[in-house]
Amino acid sequence: MEIAKSLQQIPSSYIREILAAASDKNVISLAGGLPDEKTFPIDLMKPMLESLSDMTEVFQYGATAGYGPLLEFLGDYYQLPESHIAMICTGSQQGLDLIARAYIDPNDTVVMEAPSYLGAMQVFGLVQANIVTVPQTECGPDLDALEVVFFEQSPKMFYAVPDFHNPTGVCWSLETRQRVAELCIKYNVALIEDAPYRELRFSGDAIPLTSDFCPDHSIVLRSFSKIASPGLRMGAVTGKRAYLEPLIKVKQGADLHSSVPMQALLLGLLQHDNFELHIDKIRALYKTRYQKLFAELQRQLPETCELKAVDGGMFVWLSLPECDTFALAKTLLANGVAVVPSPVFYPAHDKAKAALRLNFTNATPDELEEAVKRLAKVLQEQVG
Amino acid sequence: MEIAKSLQQIPSSYIREILAAASDKNVISLAGGLPDEKTFPIDLMKPMLESLSDMTEVFQYGATAGYGPLLEFLGDYYQLPESHIAMICTGSQQGLDLIARAYIDPNDTVVMEAPSYLGAMQVFGLVQANIVTVPQTECGPDLDALEVVFFEQSPKMFYAVPDFHNPTGVCWSLETRQRVAELCIKYNVALIEDAPYRELRFSGDAIPLTSDFCPDHSIVLRSFSKIASPGLRMGAVTGKRAYLEPLIKVKQGADLHSSVPMQALLLGLLQHDNFELHIDKIRALYKTRYQKLFAELQRQLPETCELKAVDGGMFVWLSLPECDTFALAKTLLANGVAVVPSPVFYPAHDKAKAALRLNFTNATPDELEEAVKRLAKVLQEQVG
Repeated sequence: MEIAKSLQQIPSSYIREILAAASDKNVISLAGGLPDEKTFPIDLMKPMLESLSDMTEVFQYGATAGYGPLLEFLGDYYQLPESHIAMICTGSQQGLDLIARAYIDPNDTVVMEAPSYLGAMQVFGLVQANIVTVPQTECGPDLDALEVVFFEQSPKMFYAVPDFHNPTGVCWSLETRQRVAELCIKYNVALIEDAPYRELRFSGDAIPLTSDFCPDHSIVLRSFSKIASPGLRMGAVTGKRAYLEPLIKVKQGADLHSSVPMQALLLGLLQHDNFELHIDKIRALYKTRYQKLFAELQRQLPETCELKAVDGGMFVWLSLPECDTFALAKTLLANGVAVVPSPVFYPAHDKAKAALRLNFTNATPDELEEAVKRLAKVLQEQVG
Repeated sequence: MEIAKSLQQIPSSYIREILAAASDKNVISLAGGLPDEKTFPIDLMKPMLESLSDMTEVFQYGATAGYGPLLEFLGDYYQLPESHIAMICTGSQQGLDLIARAYIDPNDTVVMEAPSYLGAMQVFGLVQANIVTVPQTECGPDLDALEVVFFEQSPKMFYAVPDFHNPTGVCWSLETRQRVAELCIKYNVALIEDAPYRELRFSGDAIPLTSDFCPDHSIVLRSFSKIASPGLRMGAVTGKRAYLEPLIKVKQGADLHSSVPMQALLLGLLQHDNFELHIDKIRALYKTRYQKLFAELQRQLPETCELKAVDGGMFVWLSLPECDTFALAKTLLANGVAVVPSPVFYPAHDKAKAALRLNFTNATPDELEEAVKRLAKVLQEQVG
């Protein structure tokens, strides 16, 4: 049976392949985007896990938009205005997929920063969007380039990860957020603000969501994978009712609704008195991991490599002199360290600037030190 | 933001509307397809629910195809041949959605029986399939009509619910299964065998899956919503590896993977010593419900209505003299009983024969008796 044309255009995921190779016991992986299992708030979930067997209603079919008590809680938690609603998704990845399916016709233009999140490129690729990228600066998207694209190409939406971007770790400045919001309103472009790393800030002060400056021109994707547990597959989408109703309609065909026991479990966790304390602990842990990785990289890397500091998230972006980063990643893997080469984060691989994405949340300080040792050795030989 | 053209063609679900109205306390609903909450095997799930907090790995990201131990178990459970695999979906509804997305280009032909499952029509509608129907007889699809369609229209797939069809309750005969399998092989059409009600047989002997006669030309969708709990959103898809790999690729973009704690919970349930006994109890319960409904209908309905006996499942199909079944369903609702009129189960509403779908699994015997009383009163007036 021949597969659909839309799927034929999707390349097999390089990351999946490298992650498979990285499961070798002799390889230290900085390639994935996994939270540390030690951060899972299982103790805080335990009371609700044990209560579920008394909650018959969570085992019945549920509403497509989500479990009522959780939706009600999230309305307060995110301080949604009257005209906005929340819906629950099977991970925020599903929220993104629903947005693409509900709104994008083949050849509709979607703008992203380059580099960008691989899962978003996959999803928009599947609906055959015309993906147009703008360069990313240290403060966020290049605003002039963004306005030109908005003006010339009338895109339907701008997909962005303003907080601790995947893969670069960049956090948009307040001014950039305000300006992007203005442009979205001016050119009637919907901002799809993906915020999975927002709570993982370990330095500096929180900045408002970009969507706070254009609430009626945006949809926000929230993830509980980094602050609770990815295995639950719980995400939420918020936005004005008119934007979300088509998503609910697509979700009905996609999976009817997300697991209700998992939604009840998430609600129990979010309502737990110690949940904020738990997030503080994650931040503290990841800060030490990041500082260790950053210090080791600064100490050991050749000067031709350029390292950007981050204030949160899960990744550091290491820029390199021009080279074949796929070949480099392969050599690194053979030397016991897995990383992700930059081209996979660009819709057009050949437009990528040479760089590596390094994850710091899922390796111990000792492993991070050893990983950098292996990385530095190869980089000294190849680009030093 | 304008919605995608594919979504514009999907009518809002009449069933959702009627189900909302049916939640009125004064209405007895035979409209839904809900299992009785009393059948949820919460006692059998309790040990695993309480063990989950010791299973850190289920809270981490998982494999897209599913939780390894569950996949391994299902391989044995379904006695899959070496070349076949299982994958886990967020309900079998997602399995169907993945099949449509992985294989159907706009205008590709998909064959179904008429009437057919509404959720399948939605999903194939979203990918803009050309849905062609063949009439259903008491033994399954009209085989001559099916061969003509296979021959003339070269469909990509034939979607079917051979066991206790939704909405009609028809169970395909053995001969029909063998013949459909032959036709699928002869004309190279993939059979999508949706089997959510298969375990709900309360009379007669089990018949092999149609796919057993064409294992390499079929994909089977399994649901745990009727024998375990719909709230979990757990389904499985089985078939040859080459058929399932594209589904896994689409699922990666759709939700990365399904909830791992729910998969572990399902595995614990399937492995429980009393699980088979539990299914026997569901069958016995639904048999008494069905017998009650059937007897009351036979006793009270006007002779112009035609009732078909069923050997399992959740629905009875009540054929009526030609009339406006939408108007009838509205009148019935005003008289305190909710049912689903036949046109919603046809891709072309105007081709529907007048009938009502009646569910017997989610009302008590007293409610069933009262519902039939209300139903009969209106039918006597309108079509008696």
